[in-house]
Amino acid sequence: MPETAPGFAVIGKSAPMLDGKARVSGLAVYTADMTLPGMLYGKVLHSTVPHARIVRIDTSRAGALPGVHAVVVGNEFPNRYGILPIGHDEAAIAVDKVRYIGDNVAAVAADTEAIADEALRLVQVEYAPLRAWFDAEESMRAERDLIHDDRPHNIEKHYSHNFGDVDTAFARAHLVREDRFRCPAVTHAAMEPHATLAAMQIDGGITVWSSTQVPYYLQRTIANVLEMPESAVRVIKPAVGGGFGGKSEVCPLEVIAAMLSKKCGRPVRITYSREEVFFTHRGRPSQIVDLKTGVDRDGKILAVAAATIQDGGAFCGYGPVTVLYSGNLLAGIYQIENLRYDGFRVLTNKPSCGAMRGHGTVNMRFAFESQLDMIASQLGIDPVEMRRRNLLKPPCFTVNNLRVTSYGFPECIDRVVEASGWRERKGKMPRGRGLGVAGSHYVTGAANPINRSDMPHSSVTLKADRDGAFTIYSGASDIGQGCDVMQVMIVAEVLGVDPSRVRLVAADTGTTPVDLGSYSSRVTFMCGNAAKRAAEELKKEIYRVSAEAQKASGKPIPQNFDEALRLALEASGVIVAHGHYAPPEAARGGHFKGAGVGPSPSYSYSAQVAEVVVDEETGEVRIEKIWAAHDCGRALNPVAVEGQVIGSVSMGLGQALQEEMIWRNGFLMNPGLLEYRSPASCDAASPDIESFIVESIDPEGPFGAKEASEGSLAASIPAVANAIYDAVGVRIMELPLTPEKILRALKQKKKAAA
Amino acid sequence: MPETAPGFAVIGKSAPMLDGKARVSGLAVYTADMTLPGMLYGKVLHSTVPHARIVRIDTSRAGALPGVHAVVVGNEFPNRYGILPIGHDEAAIAVDKVRYIGDNVAAVAADTEAIADEALRLVQVEYAPLRAWFDAEESMRAERDLIHDDRPHNIEKHYSHNFGDVDTAFARAHLVREDRFRCPAVTHAAMEPHATLAAMQIDGGITVWSSTQVPYYLQRTIANVLEMPESAVRVIKPAVGGGFGGKSEVCPLEVIAAMLSKKCGRPVRITYSREEVFFTHRGRPSQIVDLKTGVDRDGKILAVAAATIQDGGAFCGYGPVTVLYSGNLLAGIYQIENLRYDGFRVLTNKPSCGAMRGHGTVNMRFAFESQLDMIASQLGIDPVEMRRRNLLKPPCFTVNNLRVTSYGFPECIDRVVEASGWRERKGKMPRGRGLGVAGSHYVTGAANPINRSDMPHSSVTLKADRDGAFTIYSGASDIGQGCDVMQVMIVAEVLGVDPSRVRLVAADTGTTPVDLGSYSSRVTFMCGNAAKRAAEELKKEIYRVSAEAQKASGKPIPQNFDEALRLALEASGVIVAHGHYAPPEAARGGHFKGAGVGPSPSYSYSAQVAEVVVDEETGEVRIEKIWAAHDCGRALNPVAVEGQVIGSVSMGLGQALQEEMIWRNGFLMNPGLLEYRSPASCDAASPDIESFIVESIDPEGPFGAKEASEGSLAASIPAVANAIYDAVGVRIMELPLTPEKILRALKQKKKAAA
Repeated sequence: MPETAPGFAVIGKSAPMLDGKARVSGLAVYTADMTLPGMLYGKVLHSTVPHARIVRIDTSRAGALPGVHAVVVGNEFPNRYGILPIGHDEAAIAVDKVRYIGDNVAAVAADTEAIADEALRLVQVEYAPLRAWFDAEESMRAERDLIHDDRPHNIEKHYSHNFGDVDTAFARAHLVREDRFRCPAVTHAAMEPHATLAAMQIDGGITVWSSTQVPYYLQRTIANVLEMPESAVRVIKPAVGGGFGGKSEVCPLEVIAAMLSKKCGRPVRITYSREEVFFTHRGRPSQIVDLKTGVDRDGKILAVAAATIQDGGAFCGYGPVTVLYSGNLLAGIYQIENLRYDGFRVLTNKPSCGAMRGHGTVNMRFAFESQLDMIASQLGIDPVEMRRRNLLKPPCFTVNNLRVTSYGFPECIDRVVEASGWRERKGKMPRGRGLGVAGSHYVTGAANPINRSDMPHSSVTLKADRDGAFTIYSGASDIGQGCDVMQVMIVAEVLGVDPSRVRLVAADTGTTPVDLGSYSSRVTFMCGNAAKRAAEELKKEIYRVSAEAQKASGKPIPQNFDEALRLALEASGVIVAHGHYAPPEAARGGHFKGAGVGPSPSYSYSAQVAEVVVDEETGEVRIEKIWAAHDCGRALNPVAVEGQVIGSVSMGLGQALQEEMIWRNGFLMNPGLLEYRSPASCDAASPDIESFIVESIDPEGPFGAKEASEGSLAASIPAVANAIYDAVGVRIMELPLTPEKILRALKQKKKAAA
Repeated sequence: MPETAPGFAVIGKSAPMLDGKARVSGLAVYTADMTLPGMLYGKVLHSTVPHARIVRIDTSRAGALPGVHAVVVGNEFPNRYGILPIGHDEAAIAVDKVRYIGDNVAAVAADTEAIADEALRLVQVEYAPLRAWFDAEESMRAERDLIHDDRPHNIEKHYSHNFGDVDTAFARAHLVREDRFRCPAVTHAAMEPHATLAAMQIDGGITVWSSTQVPYYLQRTIANVLEMPESAVRVIKPAVGGGFGGKSEVCPLEVIAAMLSKKCGRPVRITYSREEVFFTHRGRPSQIVDLKTGVDRDGKILAVAAATIQDGGAFCGYGPVTVLYSGNLLAGIYQIENLRYDGFRVLTNKPSCGAMRGHGTVNMRFAFESQLDMIASQLGIDPVEMRRRNLLKPPCFTVNNLRVTSYGFPECIDRVVEASGWRERKGKMPRGRGLGVAGSHYVTGAANPINRSDMPHSSVTLKADRDGAFTIYSGASDIGQGCDVMQVMIVAEVLGVDPSRVRLVAADTGTTPVDLGSYSSRVTFMCGNAAKRAAEELKKEIYRVSAEAQKASGKPIPQNFDEALRLALEASGVIVAHGHYAPPEAARGGHFKGAGVGPSPSYSYSAQVAEVVVDEETGEVRIEKIWAAHDCGRALNPVAVEGQVIGSVSMGLGQALQEEMIWRNGFLMNPGLLEYRSPASCDAASPDIESFIVESIDPEGPFGAKEASEGSLAASIPAVANAIYDAVGVRIMELPLTPEKILRALKQKKKAAA
C-alpha cells in the first residue's frame, strides 16, 4: 500500500490515535480516575432474588449512618428512562418489583466507599417472590407472573416480515434445508467498567462525566428523568476504555449518580465493580435460530425463512433493534429474492441483553453461513463457489429495500481465497486440519436514529485559530476506535494542512455540537461527512473573507491558503464553519421504512478463511490462521481499520470457541474476567490474523469510507465452524464450539458410521 | 427605579450572578479546590535577599528527596514571559540574579505539600549581594548595581507629554498652586489567593486551570515561554474569588506550574499562601505627585502641570500603563486646555506594582481633587460650584484627543449634592463634622489592547439549543463582577426570551472564542457589544433559515420567534451566530495614538460627597455616610452596578484611612490580612454608602452601558480628605489619612495660630 492513497496528502496514511500515548502509558484519565471537591461515593444495592414484588424497603438505618449523605429508592425518580418509543419504559432503580438477580433496589452516597457499603447492608428489603422465567421458550408460554404486566406471554416484540413469495419459491426448490442453531449469551467485557461522576450545580444545572458511547442520549435521558431542561444537563465523555455496545444505552448507574447528586447537592461518583458490569450486561442474547433455505440445483438461493427466539432478559433496551437486524439484514449480503422472518424477543428474569459488536447479525450469520456450507456439501459445490453464485449485483435495492451502492464482497472473497491457498489446499490437507470460509456484512450506521428524530445525526464545528491551527468541535465519541484522529485527518486533507495543525475538542454536550453517538459503526461515515463539510465550508469562508477584505483595501486577492487565513483572521474576529450530515431519504428504507427494516446509508462486507487444527483425542481446536478481508469503502486510516478487523475477529473467536454466560436459577455463575474467559493475547483464540483492506469507494461516504469496526466479527464464527467440519467432518450447531461438543459429535459420528 | 428600563423586558432589572448561590454557599469550585489523578503539589522557593547575583544553586539534594518529581530553576525555561513590547522581559524564576525579597528562585513538584516544603529547604542558594534600592527618588540617582542592566538610573519609563501651551496659560493665571502629595503602596488583597493547576498531556498539549482575569493572555504566555503552539495550550478559568487587577497580569506561579507539569508529565497544582500573595503584589504603587494648577479669578482651570514618580518595584509589568493613565486621564473629567505631564516609573528592589482597581488614576485624583478644594477655598468658591465651572462640554475631544461622547458627571454632582443636603448643611455643621465632595472617572476598557494587536477585543458565539434554550460561548472572565449574567441578560433581551432560557460557557480557551480579559472595566462594554451582535445575528439567522425552509415546502413564513426557532432547527442541523467587538478608530486616540494617551471608547463619571466626624482628641475619623453617584451609561443590571459602586467606595475608603504596605530594608512587614487591614464589614471604613445610578446612555455601549466597576473608587479618597478639612480645617496630603497625621496637623495648626 502506498503511504497515502493516490491523490491524497493525509487520507490513507496510518496515524496513531490522538490519545494513544496517554492510553498505553496509563496517563489517560477515565471517569473512575476523576475526583471533585466534596465528592461522595455512590453504591447501588442489587436484588438477590430473580422475580419478586417489593413489599417494603426501609432505608432509615442506612440514611442515619454517619457519613451517608443520600439514600434513594426507585419511586423517588420523577420519571422512568426507558427508550421510548422502541421499548417499554425502564426505571433506574426498581419500582414495586425486581426482575432479575442484580436489579437495582436502592442507592446511597457516602463519604467513603466503606461507609457506602455499610449503608447498603443496613437497607432492609422484604420481597414477595413471584415465579421466575429463565428459559425463553418456557417464558413464551407464561400466563401469570408476567415480567411486565403489559407484555402478554412475556413477549417483548414479535416481528413477522414477508418479502417476495417464499412458499412458491420453496415449492420449486431443488433442495430445502431446515436446521436449528443455538447461541448462548455473550457479553462485552470492556476493560473499563462503567463509571459516572455527576455534579449537581447549585444554579440548577448538572454536569455528568460518564463512560458512555452516547453523551447526547445520556443528556436527554437525565433531563427527562430528573425533569430538567436538556441544556441544563452537560454530559462530558472522558477517556473510555471500550464500549462494544455495552455503553451505547444509558446505564442505570448514570441516572442514579445524577439523582444522588441532585438529592444531596454534592458530586457523586459511582464506579461499578467487575461483577456489577457483568450483572448489567446488555450484551448479545442467547438465541435459537430456525433457518430454512431453498436452493436450485446450481446452489442459487431461491428462498429463506428464518425464525428466531431471543432471550432478552428482564428489560427491552435496544432489543427491538437486535431482533430487527437479525432478520432484515439477512438480505444485505447475498441475493435473496424471497425472505420470510419471524423474530421473537422474549423477556426472562435475567439481566437485559442489548447491543454488542455486530448487533443482531452475528448469531444469524453463524447459522446462515454454516447452513450454506451444509447445502454446498450436499450439492458437491465448493463453499467459495457456492458464495460466488449468490452475490448481489449492486447498485441495487434488496427485496426488503436496503440500498446497496458499494459492494466489495467479491473482492474480499478473492483476497482470502488467494492468500489462504484455498484452491490448492482445500480438501488436500491431513485429517484434523481444515479450512472454512464465511462472509459477513454490517450497517454503516442506522439511517433512522434510534431514539430521537429531532437531532441531526452528526455535526461538526471548525474554528480557525490565530496561530494557524484549527480546532474541531465534535459531538462524536472516541471510545477507542480512533474517530478523533479520523476527523483530524479529514479536516487536514480538505484544508491542505499538516494534521499537527488540527486539534479537537469532542464529546461534551456543553461545548460540542450534537452527534448521536458511537454505535452501529456510524461515526466515520456520518461524523466524517460532517467534518468534511465543515472543512470545505471553512476553506470557502477563509478565501471569501480574505478576498473581500483585500478588495476593500484595493489589494490583490490571496492565492495561498495560509496568506488567506492570516488576512481573514485579521479582517474578521472569528472564522468558524459548520458541517452536518444525515442520511439521504433514499437510504432510509423507502416504502419499507414503516416496517422498520433497519436500513443504513451503506454496508460493509467481509470474507474470511479460517484454518484450524482439531485434536480428535481431546476435541480441542487450535486456530492456525485467519485471513480476513474487509471492504471498508476507503481506508482513511489503514492502521485503525486493521486494528478494528483484528479486534473484531478476536472477539468473534472468543464467542466461537469459549465465551458463554452461564446462569443457574437466574444467578450468573461466571461474573468475572477469569471465569468468563474473553480471549487474552496469550489465548488459543488469539491466532495469526492477517487482514486485507478492500476499498470499494462508497459514493456517499467521506472520501468513500464506510463501516470497519463491527462487520468482520460475524464471519469469524462460521468460518471456524466450517473449518472444523472440513477438518474432522462434524458440524457443531451450537456455540461455543467447545471440545466437549466436538468430542460428543465425533463419538456420535463414529457410532453412526459403525 | 422601574422593574426594567422603559422599553426593555430584561435590561435594567436586577438579576443575581449566575454563580451567586454557589459562591455564598461555599459550593463554588476554585482552582485551589481542584485535584486531578496523579496530581503533585508545587511550591516555590523565594529569595531572602533584596538584590543579589545568584552565584550557585544546588538542587541535587532536593531532587533526590523521595516523593519529589521535578525541580526547576530559572535558566531551564525556554523563554521569558514579560509583557513585550510595553515592558522589559521578565522571568518566571529568577535567572542569574534576584531583585526583591520574595523573588522566585526555584520550584519543586512533590507528592505532598510537606515533601515539597522539605525539598525547598534542601535547595542551596549562594548569593553575592548587590546594593539594593528601596526609595524611588534615591533609585533614580543610581549609577551602579542597576536593577536591570538596560535601564539607566533604574528608570523604567519616562513619559513627558505637553498638550496646549502650558507656560503661557500659567503666566496669565490669577492663581497658581503647587503642592506635593504622597500615596503609599496598597494591594488588592483578593479573598482567593493565586492558584494554578497545570496538566501536561502526553500528546503535547497542556491544560491549565488558573485564578486569572486573562485566560487568553495566559494561553499566549505559556505558549511563548514553553515554546508550544498556542492552540496546544488550553486555559480554563474556574470560579475566581476576586482579582481587582492582581490577576490581570500573568503571575509567575502560572508559568511555573506549567513548566513543572511539562517537566514531570504529571498534573501540578500551586496554591500561594497569603504571604506569597502579598509578596507577589502587583498592586498600586507608592507615588509622589507634584501638581501645579493655574486658574482664572472665577476658578476656571487654565493649565495643569503634573509630575509623578512611581515606585514600581523590581519589574515593569503593567507599569507603563499605570504611569500613562496617571497623566493623560487627568484631561478626561474637567475642561483642561493646557496640560503638561512628566511621569516616571522607577525600579526598586521591592515586589512589582501593577494594575489595581482604578489603575493609574486613583492617586492622581486624590491630589487633583484635594488641590481643587484648596484653590476653591483660596478663591472663596463653594467646592461644588468650583467643579461645575470646569465641566467638559461633550460630545468633544479633550486636548489630548480623548473622545468623550457621554458625560453624566453634572448629573452625578446634582444627585449627591441634593441627597447630602450640601446646600443646606455645608459650612453650617458643628466643628468636627464635615462634608467633602470629589469627582472621578475611568476608562471603559482600553481602546488599544495591552499586549496583542492580532486579537479581536471580545467575541461571542451563540448557539440555539434543541430544547429552546440558547448557549453563549464567551471568552470573557467573570471574576465576581457579574459579566456572566450580563451576557445572559443582553442575549435574552435581544432574542425576546426569558433569561432562564439562556445558558453560558465562558473563559475556556479550548471552547470559547477570544476575549482579552477582565481588566480596565472593559467587559460589559466590549463583550456586551459582542454578545448583543451575536444575538442580533442569531435572531436574523433563525428567521432566515426558517423562512427559506417554509418557502421551499410552500408553507407560510413563521411570524413567531419560537415557531421560527423550531422550524430553523428542523431545517438546519446547527443554528449558531457570532458577534465581535473592537473599539472604532475614532476612539483610539487619533493623532495622539502614537504618544499612547491611553484612550477608551467611553468614560464613566462619579461624584461623591463624604460626611465625616473627626475626633480632635484622638485624630480618629469616622465616616458617617458616603453619597456616591455613578454614571454607568445604562445600568444593565442595577444590583450589579450598585455592588460595584459600593465595593469601589469601600476599597477607596480602605486606601483613604488605613491601608499601606510597609517595608523595612525591602522586607514587607505586614504580609497578612490581619496586619494589612483591608476594611472588613465591621470596620470604621464601612459606613452607610448610598449609591445613585446616573444613566447617560452611551452611544457606543451595549444598550448604552459603560464602565461601572472601578471609577467610583478614586472619588472616595479626596472626598474624605476634603471632608476632614471641612470638619477640622487641616489638609492631609499624604495617604492614608491616619489619626497620627491628623493629630500632628492639628497641633501644627494650633501652633501656627498661637
